[in-house]
Amino acid sequence: MYSFKNDYSEGAHPRILNALIESNLVQEDGYGEDQFSQKAVELLKERMGRTDVDIHLLSGGTQTNLIAISAFLRPHEAAMAASTGHILGHETGAIEATGHKVLSIETVNGKLTPSDVQAVLDGHPDEHMVKPKLVYISNSTEIGSIYNQSELVQLSEFCKKNHLILYMDGARLGSALCSTENDLQLSDLPTLVDAFYIGGTKNGALIGEALVICKDSLKEDFRYHMKQKGALLAKGRLLGTQFLELFRDNLFFDLAAHANKMATILRDEISKANIPFLTHSPTNQIFPILPNALITELEKHYAFHFWEKVDTDHSAIRLVTSWATKEEEVTAFLENLKKLM
Amino acid sequence: MYSFKNDYSEGAHPRILNALIESNLVQEDGYGEDQFSQKAVELLKERMGRTDVDIHLLSGGTQTNLIAISAFLRPHEAAMAASTGHILGHETGAIEATGHKVLSIETVNGKLTPSDVQAVLDGHPDEHMVKPKLVYISNSTEIGSIYNQSELVQLSEFCKKNHLILYMDGARLGSALCSTENDLQLSDLPTLVDAFYIGGTKNGALIGEALVICKDSLKEDFRYHMKQKGALLAKGRLLGTQFLELFRDNLFFDLAAHANKMATILRDEISKANIPFLTHSPTNQIFPILPNALITELEKHYAFHFWEKVDTDHSAIRLVTSWATKEEEVTAFLENLKKLM
Amino acid sequence: MYSFKNDYSEGAHPRILNALIESNLVQEDGYGEDQFSQKAVELLKERMGRTDVDIHLLSGGTQTNLIAISAFLRPHEAAMAASTGHILGHETGAIEATGHKVLSIETVNGKLTPSDVQAVLDGHPDEHMVKPKLVYISNSTEIGSIYNQSELVQLSEFCKKNHLILYMDGARLGSALCSTENDLQLSDLPTLVDAFYIGGTKNGALIGEALVICKDSLKEDFRYHMKQKGALLAKGRLLGTQFLELFRDNLFFDLAAHANKMATILRDEISKANIPFLTHSPTNQIFPILPNALITELEKHYAFHFWEKVDTDHSAIRLVTSWATKEEEVTAFLENLKKLM
Amino acid sequence: MYSFKNDYSEGAHPRILNALIESNLVQEDGYGEDQFSQKAVELLKERMGRTDVDIHLLSGGTQTNLIAISAFLRPHEAAMAASTGHILGHETGAIEATGHKVLSIETVNGKLTPSDVQAVLDGHPDEHMVKPKLVYISNSTEIGSIYNQSELVQLSEFCKKNHLILYMDGARLGSALCSTENDLQLSDLPTLVDAFYIGGTKNGALIGEALVICKDSLKEDFRYHMKQKGALLAKGRLLGTQFLELFRDNLFFDLAAHANKMATILRDEISKANIPFLTHSPTNQIFPILPNALITELEKHYAFHFWEKVDTDHSAIRLVTSWATKEEEVTAFLENLKKLM
Repeated sequence: MYSFKNDYSEGAHPRILNALIESNLVQEDGYGEDQFSQKAVELLKERMGRTDVDIHLLSGGTQTNLIAISAFLRPHEAAMAASTGHILGHETGAIEATGHKVLSIETVNGKLTPSDVQAVLDGHPDEHMVKPKLVYISNSTEIGSIYNQSELVQLSEFCKKNHLILYMDGARLGSALCSTENDLQLSDLPTLVDAFYIGGTKNGALIGEALVICKDSLKEDFRYHMKQKGALLAKGRLLGTQFLELFRDNLFFDLAAHANKMATILRDEISKANIPFLTHSPTNQIFPILPNALITELEKHYAFHFWEKVDTDHSAIRLVTSWATKEEEVTAFLENLKKLM
Repeated sequence: MYSFKNDYSEGAHPRILNALIESNLVQEDGYGEDQFSQKAVELLKERMGRTDVDIHLLSGGTQTNLIAISAFLRPHEAAMAASTGHILGHETGAIEATGHKVLSIETVNGKLTPSDVQAVLDGHPDEHMVKPKLVYISNSTEIGSIYNQSELVQLSEFCKKNHLILYMDGARLGSALCSTENDLQLSDLPTLVDAFYIGGTKNGALIGEALVICKDSLKEDFRYHMKQKGALLAKGRLLGTQFLELFRDNLFFDLAAHANKMATILRDEISKANIPFLTHSPTNQIFPILPNALITELEKHYAFHFWEKVDTDHSAIRLVTSWATKEEEVTAFLENLKKLM
Repeated sequence: MYSFKNDYSEGAHPRILNALIESNLVQEDGYGEDQFSQKAVELLKERMGRTDVDIHLLSGGTQTNLIAISAFLRPHEAAMAASTGHILGHETGAIEATGHKVLSIETVNGKLTPSDVQAVLDGHPDEHMVKPKLVYISNSTEIGSIYNQSELVQLSEFCKKNHLILYMDGARLGSALCSTENDLQLSDLPTLVDAFYIGGTKNGALIGEALVICKDSLKEDFRYHMKQKGALLAKGRLLGTQFLELFRDNLFFDLAAHANKMATILRDEISKANIPFLTHSPTNQIFPILPNALITELEKHYAFHFWEKVDTDHSAIRLVTSWATKEEEVTAFLENLKKLM
Repeated sequence: MYSFKNDYSEGAHPRILNALIESNLVQEDGYGEDQFSQKAVELLKERMGRTDVDIHLLSGGTQTNLIAISAFLRPHEAAMAASTGHILGHETGAIEATGHKVLSIETVNGKLTPSDVQAVLDGHPDEHMVKPKLVYISNSTEIGSIYNQSELVQLSEFCKKNHLILYMDGARLGSALCSTENDLQLSDLPTLVDAFYIGGTKNGALIGEALVICKDSLKEDFRYHMKQKGALLAKGRLLGTQFLELFRDNLFFDLAAHANKMATILRDEISKANIPFLTHSPTNQIFPILPNALITELEKHYAFHFWEKVDTDHSAIRLVTSWATKEEEVTAFLENLKKLM
């Protein structure tokens, strides 16, 4: 049964495995002090045209979010996130477990605006409530949408003005930056956000996220936080080698572009069949709304996530494509879908 | 410069990389629900002759320790450890960061005895102090010693009688179990300790520790704790595939035996040269005491850890061997050492 | 300027101060082991007809909530509360600071029903989300409403069936139990909830809340949690003496009844003037909806809380009465109000 | 049975109770925003000749320590304390419960020196260990000794040079400052330490400690931390009224001087009987070493703390005097002691 369940169903892109094999017997220091990690960090800085950022390699998204946010905030400060935000509903209270409340904001498209955040600030005037301090956004969002440059600039300016930390979860940043609707570049981000991460796990790596800390005051002692939360890998080279391979040339972007292309084929054909979508998603996750009976049939042949009920007879499902999605499987899926309609 | 700095200087044993390559494009569910992880867990249960334990695969030692200990203890309860214990001095307060004090116990050889623990219990009679609840031991210890069966049985019985949780850090369990002085078997552990982990990272894996929870009351909801602390990998298959390969046959033990053999050659030859050792270590870490001038010379040719000053003119260094240590490098080191003496 | 801002504007009822004076020079043990605290605990058990509950005296509501909830929950478990719940919006993330998420539930009247809680359970099926475990309710609620017996019985049965902990914040329990609409008795509570507290601070004491733990599994080692969070007062007698006086006869209930009576006069007269209320509140907090201009005038003569905007021209204010509210001041307020209308 | 167990066996000094009575029915705002608290804060600033410090009133020592230390430190930073320090052994892991390790330092007299702290810094060079950041000292110490000016100046300079926070637990600051051996003044402290508290509970108040934050960077948002940890009392006036009375004239110092005087009588007479002491203590706690049989006899007539075994036949006990200790009881005790010898 072919799976459109997520973008981490397979292992790693073959070039990444090759890189691990080739470097395997070189002796290196541990905990990210190996040459591969250090070169990867330098390469990433180069790719974003900024030598003044700090970059740390971590294992996964929840780990990165919880370490970054708990390192950045003082005990009484809170994060804010769209109600669809990953830290709110899919990380088992990881942020709260470090002592910080996450304030939920209802949105229509998974994206936060200055007025959304202003409303939270207005509702938290004094010490009887937490102090809202960090704005958590995802790009692409958990429902597939992306921030365009103008939106991100506005949010960034608002945060700077209000002394808020702007943090971007980039678990699917590759897909966002390679979307046909995107007008942001990797090199724009250090200017616009205070910290963000470049997701490797969902874009061809075995594991690995590269956290970029842009704001100076957030940089100090970050490796202490990583160690304390169990994120400094003895064989940190595992992370370094992968990011080195992903960014040595255009591999990272090529993989994301492939995932997007596969999603686009799905989206276009499904649209042509007059099937509506739950959200506007120009990235590698799409959310078609199908009759329940059709979903039941599809589940016999394909793995995917049931997303939510829409009305009595219809529900949205989530289809995710990745660097590993085969075009012939996409075509076969569409044919199957048409047959079932 | 050849390194005896640690047992994680290289990548993974080639068979492990092969296993990753062969399984790479199979689609699997995430977060440890893939077939490789599930088979690895079954295999491990088989190897220890116990189907009633729970086994979870995690990324590293600090992560495993902090998740296990914080999941096992209530907020007012404390861990106890030898002052040399890894959780005390080398994990950046990871246990305290989850809210729990770690009580330090001075020992001569890195090992805890019932009377050591009894003394802590005696010193903590009421609610004005933490409640000592979990006994943390390492096998092999951080200074290379191991628990024999009789010692572990005594400690185990003491803990059961006093309603204490006995937890074994097995970062180097392979080396302990393969020591020529060892009389414990993997299958003894579920009976003797309440939880322990089998270290993969320091015995040939890229990353990976297998936590075995033996006591029923500690099992419930453990995956919630893993997720909350950022330890559920999206591609959990990375851990499963490795443990499957390590325990498919005798690989895990063969690798540890090789590391021990290399350490034995070093130890025997260094002893013959009338060089004393800081500790009695029958495992893959040894601590010869050398003249400071000699150490300075050695450092020009080899990488290793300076351990501690012994007297004005002598210091102990740490030499660590691994599955990847080459016998010719051991021989060369010994020759160099003799030349320098 | 007379204040209807809250029920803790004055010090303590004179009988309480007298009790402190009379017992002042008796030497006693510290930390709640004095005779006054112990007698108070026995007396409270007698008043609720249950000798099998555990009772602890603490300083304030936030302190009691955070210690109880963090002692009762394991790290991955969450509390649930009405969105108006005190722990959600007015305790500066105190619960999250102990590591636990608080899930917010929208309600119409500040009260939770089984179906409210069921919906949260349905939305939290697995380890990628927190495990909802504790139902936090307030009686009276933060908006003045109360649970009747039937509502509480239903919620209690639901919680028992679903292995949930039911915890009642009783900061204003006196006012709730003395409401003319109430059909619950203090002695009903140990059967219906797993833990609750009897608020002293807002009912005539200087400080003090009596936490009653009814469920056996929640009792163990509770004093450790109190000490760890800074709640074991060296002069615990300060709390014991006050509760002894409050419950020696009917003082606690007399004081609450007076507060309610004063609120009733306000409510009845304001109603007669055809002024609507934001919520149905039969207790000592009422929320009349007044024209904004009128509120501005009233603020020149009285202190009270602005509660929330209702429409362009109207807003709700909060008027709180207490054991210390003077009837002549209530009368004067009503006269003033009428003049300003 | 007369008690020398501690300095909080009685209630409050009568003048304090009077102050509570006199102010009782004045309506005031809550949470420390009442006029009494605000005047107390102003008065305290005046008494130490510094208007630029921030002062907050809290309920007890453990509460003050845990809130201050957790507010001052970032998650990876640790406190250092003498092994006799209250936060190490008598606060049930309160500091660790906020996530911070407390590093223990062995001392002879309960006091820390620059070289003690330097040794800890030397042992914590990198991110694999916590970062030692806050030096916790007590004055008087838990074993009755005091810092003289020269010692405190040296420690202060060392901390400034090493970017360490110097925090003084002043649970018994009154007794320290009124010791005949003391050469420090209250007004010296804001220059020498970054924060300290003036203990009220053990010097005549019902409850109450006044935390003085001297270093600017530690001041921001402190009330948030107080609220989050349950320390903002609804009737904050309870604290304000007491400190106002204690510092309105010389009451605070008079009470401490009386306690010291009573201790001095005990110390002098016990010394004359050739009974040795465990520590040099010029304050209100003394630790005579007595034959075990004599202690058993004394326990029939007096309440006091057994402190520790000294040799097979002798042990140290702790005798504590307070503002409430009666000279005739001191005399009677000494007579009894002599009879029993």
